[in-house]
Amino acid sequence: MKGNVLLVHGGAPTAVINASLYGAVTEAKKYAEVDHIYAAIGGSGAVIREQFLDMKTVSDDRLELLLSTPASAIGTSRDHLEPEDYEAIARVIRKHDIKYVFFNGGNGSMDACGKVYKACQALGLTDVRVVGIPKTIDNDIAVTDHAPGFGSAARYIAATVSEVSQDVRALPIHVSVVEAMGRNAGWIAAASALARSGDGDGPDLIYLPERPFIEEEFLADVKALVEKKGGVVVVASEGLTGPDGQPIVEPIFQVGRATYYGDVSAHLANLVIKKLGYKARSEKPGICGRASIAFQSSVDRDEAVIAGAEAVKAAMEGQTGVMIGFERLPGAEYKVKPIRIPIEQVMLTERTMPAEFINERGNDVTDAFVEWCRPLIGEPLRPFVTFKNDL
Amino acid sequence: MKGNVLLVHGGAPTAVINASLYGAVTEAKKYAEVDHIYAAIGGSGAVIREQFLDMKTVSDDRLELLLSTPASAIGTSRDHLEPEDYEAIARVIRKHDIKYVFFNGGNGSMDACGKVYKACQALGLTDVRVVGIPKTIDNDIAVTDHAPGFGSAARYIAATVSEVSQDVRALPIHVSVVEAMGRNAGWIAAASALARSGDGDGPDLIYLPERPFIEEEFLADVKALVEKKGGVVVVASEGLTGPDGQPIVEPIFQVGRATYYGDVSAHLANLVIKKLGYKARSEKPGICGRASIAFQSSVDRDEAVIAGAEAVKAAMEGQTGVMIGFERLPGAEYKVKPIRIPIEQVMLTERTMPAEFINERGNDVTDAFVEWCRPLIGEPLRPFVTFKNDL
Repeated sequence: MKGNVLLVHGGAPTAVINASLYGAVTEAKKYAEVDHIYAAIGGSGAVIREQFLDMKTVSDDRLELLLSTPASAIGTSRDHLEPEDYEAIARVIRKHDIKYVFFNGGNGSMDACGKVYKACQALGLTDVRVVGIPKTIDNDIAVTDHAPGFGSAARYIAATVSEVSQDVRALPIHVSVVEAMGRNAGWIAAASALARSGDGDGPDLIYLPERPFIEEEFLADVKALVEKKGGVVVVASEGLTGPDGQPIVEPIFQVGRATYYGDVSAHLANLVIKKLGYKARSEKPGICGRASIAFQSSVDRDEAVIAGAEAVKAAMEGQTGVMIGFERLPGAEYKVKPIRIPIEQVMLTERTMPAEFINERGNDVTDAFVEWCRPLIGEPLRPFVTFKNDL
Repeated sequence: MKGNVLLVHGGAPTAVINASLYGAVTEAKKYAEVDHIYAAIGGSGAVIREQFLDMKTVSDDRLELLLSTPASAIGTSRDHLEPEDYEAIARVIRKHDIKYVFFNGGNGSMDACGKVYKACQALGLTDVRVVGIPKTIDNDIAVTDHAPGFGSAARYIAATVSEVSQDVRALPIHVSVVEAMGRNAGWIAAASALARSGDGDGPDLIYLPERPFIEEEFLADVKALVEKKGGVVVVASEGLTGPDGQPIVEPIFQVGRATYYGDVSAHLANLVIKKLGYKARSEKPGICGRASIAFQSSVDRDEAVIAGAEAVKAAMEGQTGVMIGFERLPGAEYKVKPIRIPIEQVMLTERTMPAEFINERGNDVTDAFVEWCRPLIGEPLRPFVTFKNDL
C-alpha cells in the first residue's frame, strides 16, 4: 500500500531507543511503496506541530551513529494528550498521506498508540496501520519477556555496583547505598545482583518496591553484615514504600499541590549513620545511567534493532494495533523470537517483579531472577583481580 | 643494594591506582637485588599488622588484570597515623629487610611517605629509600602538571554529562544538577566542560568550590537559560560554599561532634523547583564514577603505569624522599616527562584551580582549562547524532 511512514518516540530515553529507530528506518527504506519516512522531532507534540524530518534524507553515516547515540536523537516527550490531540494527530496523518505509524515507547506510549489508531478509524482512515515498538529501562511492559532498554540499564547498574563493591572493599567504607531507577517495578535494582562475581562482593542487600521496606529489618541486616564483612553495599529502588504503602522518605517541601520527597539513598545512608553509628554514604546515578552508551548491552542493542524492523514488517504485512514483543524460547542457550502482541494487552498495564524472583525476606533476588536476567546484559562483566583473599 | 620492596596504597581508590601497581611490580621484577616485592594488603595499617603478599608469587595473567581492575586490588586505607605508628612501620621495614618503600596516594599519603622516611632515619635505617607515587581523582597534588587518577575521573564526568545533556535535550527535562566529587578543588567538576560537542549541549553552568556560590546569580542564570534553550544541565562540586565560606547545604543532623549535610545537587535542584517553579532533578554518581574502568582514560592508565615504574627506577638509582610527577612539555602535541619532586613540596599542600581556568562570573571554566584538560581524558568522546538542528 502506497503511503508514508511516521515514527514517534515517547517517554524517557534509553540507551537503545535510537537503535530501534535505526532498525525501523533501514527496514522502511526497503519498501518501494514508502515515499517519505517522517520522524517527529520532539515526540507526539511534534506530530501536531508537523515537525517532521524525512529520514530518507539522512546519510548512511549519520544513521549508523544511531546505534551508539544516547537518549533520543529525534527527541521524545511526556506530553499528556487530550482526546482533541488524538484527533489532531489523525488529521496530520491524513494531510501527510501517512499510512504506517510507529510509536516507540513504554506503557503510556502504547496507550497513545491505541488511541491514535482509534482516532484514525473515527476519521475514516481505515487503512492506516499503527504499530508499537516497546522501550523502557524499567522493564514494566506486560506480556513481552522483556523490553529493549532494560538490558542496558541492567548492565549499567550491574557494572556500576560491581565497581562500587570493589571500592567499598578496598577502602573500606562501612556502607554505600546505591539508588536504582524504577519507581513501581524493581527490575533495575534487581539487576544489580549480576554484579556478584562469587567472591563475596556486593550488592549485599537489594530492596525492591514490590515488597514493603521494614526499617528495623534493614538496620538489623546492615549491622550483621558490617560486623561480618566490614563494607556493605545496599541497592535500593527509588520507589520504596513502607508497610503502610507510603514512601519511606518524608516529604521535604510542597509546591502547589505537588509534594517533593528526598532521595531514598540519602535517607537510608542517614538512617545507618544515625541509628547504627556507622559511616555511610549514598550514590544516586539517576539519569547518568538511563542512556549510557558505555554500558549498552550488545544483546539489548541487537534486539532493539530487531524490534524496530519487525514493527515495520508487521505494518507492511497489514497488521495494526499490535506491539512487537519478545518470547523467550526454552533451552539452555538464550534465544528469543519477536512476537506481535495486541496493543490493548499492554496499554497502561505495569508489570512488576513476580514472586519467584524475590527472596523470602524481601531483601534480595532469587537465583531464578539472576538466570533470567544474565543473558540480557550482553557480554559478561569485565573480570578483575583482588588480592585480599590471597592472605 | 640488596633488599625487599614494599608497596602501600593510601586514600581513596581511582580507576588507575592498580595500573601504577602494575608498573611498579613489573619494574621491580627486573632487579636481581630485589628478593621480595611485598604489597601491604589494606593500606598503612596493614604494614603495622605485617599483612603482606609477595607480588612475585602472582601469575602474569593476574598482574595483567590490574590494568583493568577498579578500586585498589591490594586494598587501601584512611588510617590516621600517630608518631608511634610511623615508628612501628619503620620497625617492620627493618624486620623484613625492606630497602625500597613506595607509597601510592594523594597529599595525605605523601605526608605519610615523608614521615616514614624520617622514622627510618631515626631508627638508623639510613639506606631505606622512600618514594611517592601520585594518585588522586581530585587532581589536588601540587607541583605535578596533573596526577594519575584525574584523567579517568575527568573522562567519567565528561562522558556522563554529555549523555545527561542528550537526555535533557531529548525529553526535555527543565534542569538536571549533576554533583561532581572534589570537596576543595573543582578539577573534576571543571572537566565536565569536555562534554560540550559544540552544538549547544551542556553542561550549561559549572560551579567550583574555588568561587563563592551566589544563590541569586545561580537562579538568574538558570532562568535565563531555561527561557533560551529549554533544558539546562548544571554541574556542581560537592564542596560548594557561599560568600560566608560556609557550605551552601544546611546541616541536616548531628552525630556526636560530626555534622551531616545534605547533597549539594539535591539542594540546588530543590532551589530551582521552589524559587523558579521549574521541574528539576539531581544526579549524584558519587563513588560510581571514582574507579570506573569503562571510562578509564588510556592516557591516564599509561601515565599511571609510568609513574609506578619511574618510582621504582628512582629508588633503584638511590633517590629517596621524592614523589614522581609529570611535567608537560611545550608544543602543540601533548607530551609529558616524568619528574622527581622533593616530597616536602607536596606534603599536605592542596592545589586548587588557578584563576586563569575559571571564567569571570565564576559559573564556568575558560578555554585555557579545556585545552589543558582535553588530552588527559584519552580518546575523544564517542560521537553521536542529533536531528533537532536539522529542522
